[in-house]
Amino acid sequence: MGYAVIFMHRQFSLQPYSRHYSHSKNCFLDFMELKSDGSIGVNSKYAPKMKAVLEKYQEFKKNETLLFLDFVTVADYLFLLRSVTRIMSALKEHAMYYLAAAVSDFFIPAQKMPQHKIQSDGGLTLTMDQVPKFLKPMVTNWVPCGFIVSFKLETDPALLVDKSRHALTRYGHQIVIANLLAIRKREVILITRDSEFQIKLTEDEIAENIEIESRIIPELTKRHDEWIRNADHVDM
Amino acid sequence: MGYAVIFMHRQFSLQPYSRHYSHSKNCFLDFMELKSDGSIGVNSKYAPKMKAVLEKYQEFKKNETLLFLDFVTVADYLFLLRSVTRIMSALKEHAMYYLAAAVSDFFIPAQKMPQHKIQSDGGLTLTMDQVPKFLKPMVTNWVPCGFIVSFKLETDPALLVDKSRHALTRYGHQIVIANLLAIRKREVILITRDSEFQIKLTEDEIAENIEIESRIIPELTKRHDEWIRNADHVDM
Repeated sequence: MGYAVIFMHRQFSLQPYSRHYSHSKNCFLDFMELKSDGSIGVNSKYAPKMKAVLEKYQEFKKNETLLFLDFVTVADYLFLLRSVTRIMSALKEHAMYYLAAAVSDFFIPAQKMPQHKIQSDGGLTLTMDQVPKFLKPMVTNWVPCGFIVSFKLETDPALLVDKSRHALTRYGHQIVIANLLAIRKREVILITRDSEFQIKLTEDEIAENIEIESRIIPELTKRHDEWIRNADHVDM
Repeated sequence: MGYAVIFMHRQFSLQPYSRHYSHSKNCFLDFMELKSDGSIGVNSKYAPKMKAVLEKYQEFKKNETLLFLDFVTVADYLFLLRSVTRIMSALKEHAMYYLAAAVSDFFIPAQKMPQHKIQSDGGLTLTMDQVPKFLKPMVTNWVPCGFIVSFKLETDPALLVDKSRHALTRYGHQIVIANLLAIRKREVILITRDSEFQIKLTEDEIAENIEIESRIIPELTKRHDEWIRNADHVDM
């Protein structure tokens, strides 16, 4: 069956499928050609890849299995997440929450924002508040039966695993995907309360442009299946 | 003849031509169709507009009249601007500098940046330095004969014209395009040391998606022509 996906993303972020042809990299205009009959086609050199992307894109549109929801500020994100998860809580253990958005740690509340553009006649000191930790209420109240995967990004390897475990203990969700900024596209660790599982691309896979998500997602769906089976047992 | 253009832009910003089809708005995949012979074409409904864009895009590529130069940080921008303008100074009065990039007013110098990700266990206070005012050295030293157009964006209408005039006096360049954040896409004022010229789209023009740049640029090229003629007189 596979999953239907709600893609919550910041306005103008890269998106599934079209991400292969952003306006600034791999610009699609470079792949198009004007034909003698006045129509526009795709250069045959680039057509096979574009065809594969387009077929997948049209399939999800036809099947209505991908919903795009965008937000702008971190406050928008938090309210949207709460609304969506509360609605999805009806799916109980069958829903997976893959919290990959890199949410700001700090923000300036609206009531502290100046009305007008700040004039620049010297330096500037900004005082920012911490963004509320939303995982605790999400796990406890919004979707207590959901399978929740969060990300922990660090730059310091010495902190990574401890901070990930600390998040699992503090919030009570299922998996933290721990990753280091410098190598996050080729190596991550899936951390649960009682296990660590490294996913690391080989040199060959990197050379073939394999994306690490293609290794992460099957591992997560496998664990989500187990989560669903275990929930069934409890129900009996 | 027209102008050859150096498009200095932040990495991943919208770009000429492809901007009509960014990955997040007007996604081009929505305009493509798989044909029965296995090739990919553009849906005939969207083909005329895309053809017009593609023809212009291919023309500048063939003629090599558009150079893309990207930057990331504000320091990159300033060093790149200095390098480019110093090279272009050989063009003397024939070069126009259209400084539309919305450069940060404040920044954190590299030596004040922490090595690792900032841990979030409370609020955060950031102290930022003012970005150096580069227009003065640009006008005085880098391209003293160039035709230099800067932008002044404000949110407070009461400050706009005075601040624009102040910039002209302080830096000694030719034109400030004064614009207010809320209405900048339909109304600007071209300000020189001794004149103000309002450019304002009509309701009809707004309804037809006329872009205000299509009114600004002809006015600027006219004034640049005058600038070149006056420079000739001085040379004689």
